[in-house]
Amino acid sequence: MRIKRLQEFINEHELDAALITRRENLFYFTGSAPVLGGYLVVTPDDALFIVPELEYEEAKANSKVPVEKFKTGKELYERLSSFRPRKLGIEGKTSFSTVQTLKEKAGAKDFVPIDEVIRDLRIIKEAGEIEAIKAACGIADMAMMAALEEASEGKREREVAARMEYVMKMNGAEKPAFDTIVASGPRSALPHGVASDRRIERGDLVVIDEGALYRHYNSDMTRTIVVGSPNEKQKDIYYAVLEAQRKGVEVARPGMTAKELDTVVRDVIAEYGYGDYFIHSTGHGVGLEIHEWPRVSQTDDTELRPGMVITVEPGIYIPGFGGVRIEDTILITEGGAVRLTRTERELI
Amino acid sequence: MRIKRLQEFINEHELDAALITRRENLFYFTGSAPVLGGYLVVTPDDALFIVPELEYEEAKANSKVPVEKFKTGKELYERLSSFRPRKLGIEGKTSFSTVQTLKEKAGAKDFVPIDEVIRDLRIIKEAGEIEAIKAACGIADMAMMAALEEASEGKREREVAARMEYVMKMNGAEKPAFDTIVASGPRSALPHGVASDRRIERGDLVVIDEGALYRHYNSDMTRTIVVGSPNEKQKDIYYAVLEAQRKGVEVARPGMTAKELDTVVRDVIAEYGYGDYFIHSTGHGVGLEIHEWPRVSQTDDTELRPGMVITVEPGIYIPGFGGVRIEDTILITEGGAVRLTRTERELI
Repeated sequence: MRIKRLQEFINEHELDAALITRRENLFYFTGSAPVLGGYLVVTPDDALFIVPELEYEEAKANSKVPVEKFKTGKELYERLSSFRPRKLGIEGKTSFSTVQTLKEKAGAKDFVPIDEVIRDLRIIKEAGEIEAIKAACGIADMAMMAALEEASEGKREREVAARMEYVMKMNGAEKPAFDTIVASGPRSALPHGVASDRRIERGDLVVIDEGALYRHYNSDMTRTIVVGSPNEKQKDIYYAVLEAQRKGVEVARPGMTAKELDTVVRDVIAEYGYGDYFIHSTGHGVGLEIHEWPRVSQTDDTELRPGMVITVEPGIYIPGFGGVRIEDTILITEGGAVRLTRTERELI
Repeated sequence: MRIKRLQEFINEHELDAALITRRENLFYFTGSAPVLGGYLVVTPDDALFIVPELEYEEAKANSKVPVEKFKTGKELYERLSSFRPRKLGIEGKTSFSTVQTLKEKAGAKDFVPIDEVIRDLRIIKEAGEIEAIKAACGIADMAMMAALEEASEGKREREVAARMEYVMKMNGAEKPAFDTIVASGPRSALPHGVASDRRIERGDLVVIDEGALYRHYNSDMTRTIVVGSPNEKQKDIYYAVLEAQRKGVEVARPGMTAKELDTVVRDVIAEYGYGDYFIHSTGHGVGLEIHEWPRVSQTDDTELRPGMVITVEPGIYIPGFGGVRIEDTILITEGGAVRLTRTERELI
């Protein structure tokens, strides 16, 4: 089905073949994602997965597509050129040097990006994919519980992150979905404050943004706490973000666009007078990549549909003072949306 | 100095400019590596680091090169086109879609790979780089100590890896240098047996391959143990690999080539009759990337020089039976080589 859709694209655009090399797409189309990489060739009516010799047994065991092996680069490019790929579909992230080699050694002349058709397939998650994302979200919940226990006065941000990542892995995660963010005090005003050696102080806002990679699928969640008692301004910001985030999850439904969802969330923050401090988009798709389509932003008119998985993550960042972000991974359903990350949101 | 060498290359090749976008190279040339990326433009006599607005403050604090910010892609490419980069040097890993955009929106016509000059710079580590790698190796030693305690009958491979990665992070590592390998029993015959849910059994060979990323620099080390008492064949393989690895570290010195070092190590394994089971190269450079130049293999004639950091990691892999690999990160010095990973090698 997935490869069939790609073949329709190949035929529509009169390509000789398409070549896929990105790990997440190899997994998506073949079911196998070799550590040393691989080359999936899709022709108008066939497909072949060519992998390094060291990966052959494992690829054969997992791939839905026939597998061949190669020993040397020479052998690989000879095999690729046997498909006579003059007009070749490739991923936009294919490297310049690979494109040069395909020209020189496989006779490729014209290159056509195939990202759009892959995007359209991957943007709607199938049942098995949703199960993996749900499990990844469950692990993120466990890691957040550990963080809420661990984040206290005197602890280093990095120690909190170490504990969270340990919990993820002990619960079956392959690894964190991204560098875990534990941003305390003034650092909480940095939207990407990866855990540092800073010690958490009493009265700090602490933004904790984390996710797990489980069976190739990601999760993404943020919670913010105050260590000790929050002051009025911290509460004010917190409840503005919380209302915006709740509203986003409530209104998200099929038929509205990603941009419209961004607007709803952005408007709540603006009503509270913090519009200038919400300096990023409302969210992004989550799946085989931690950031994928759609972008829940003013630049993406994608219509939300059942099976999409996105984040809703408004934030307010006040330089020198601190920041608050609250984020869930949600699934768009027929009737609206459900939260896949389930940790309590009212934390201060 | 680093940028000056790049400018010499730019002048030699009559480029209008070079554009650097890879994270490790941005850090190498500017001292700053923004999470959201950045664009370093180097011209025959100047340099400018252009970063997303959200990264501006941090980049300005760390970059040795003047910093500018951009809000939108349009703004970025307008600024890039102001350099009139018709003949533009780029990294080989620059993506196809970036190359297309540079053609369409910045007026670039010809692209010249600049990897060689970057390789020649980065292959010799400066004092500060060696300090970071030594510290990363020290953290790897601590993680290996934890692994040797943890790897016992009944433990899951993933649990051992979880503990190791926790120790890394608690000791200041940003993250593991790569997915930690804990490969037990028959899985030890897989050169890339990333820790799985398999439970370790009595009598298993367990290959543990790990490293830490510390202040942007990597370390890499492997040890192999037997849980319980080794049998004769396990010992036989182990001591063949150990002798090959010791010999490699002993003979490595300035003036010999990477290929010659590979041959010395390979010959020891062959003398023991296991030549066909040593199915990868002897090693690789380690630095800002976990795998960089030189390749210690039959295809790399690079002459070893003081300041190079490489691994020596022979292995023997017998399908169905198991495998052994022993690896250290070493520094080439004036007089020979020193091990930077220091964990005991005689473990069975």
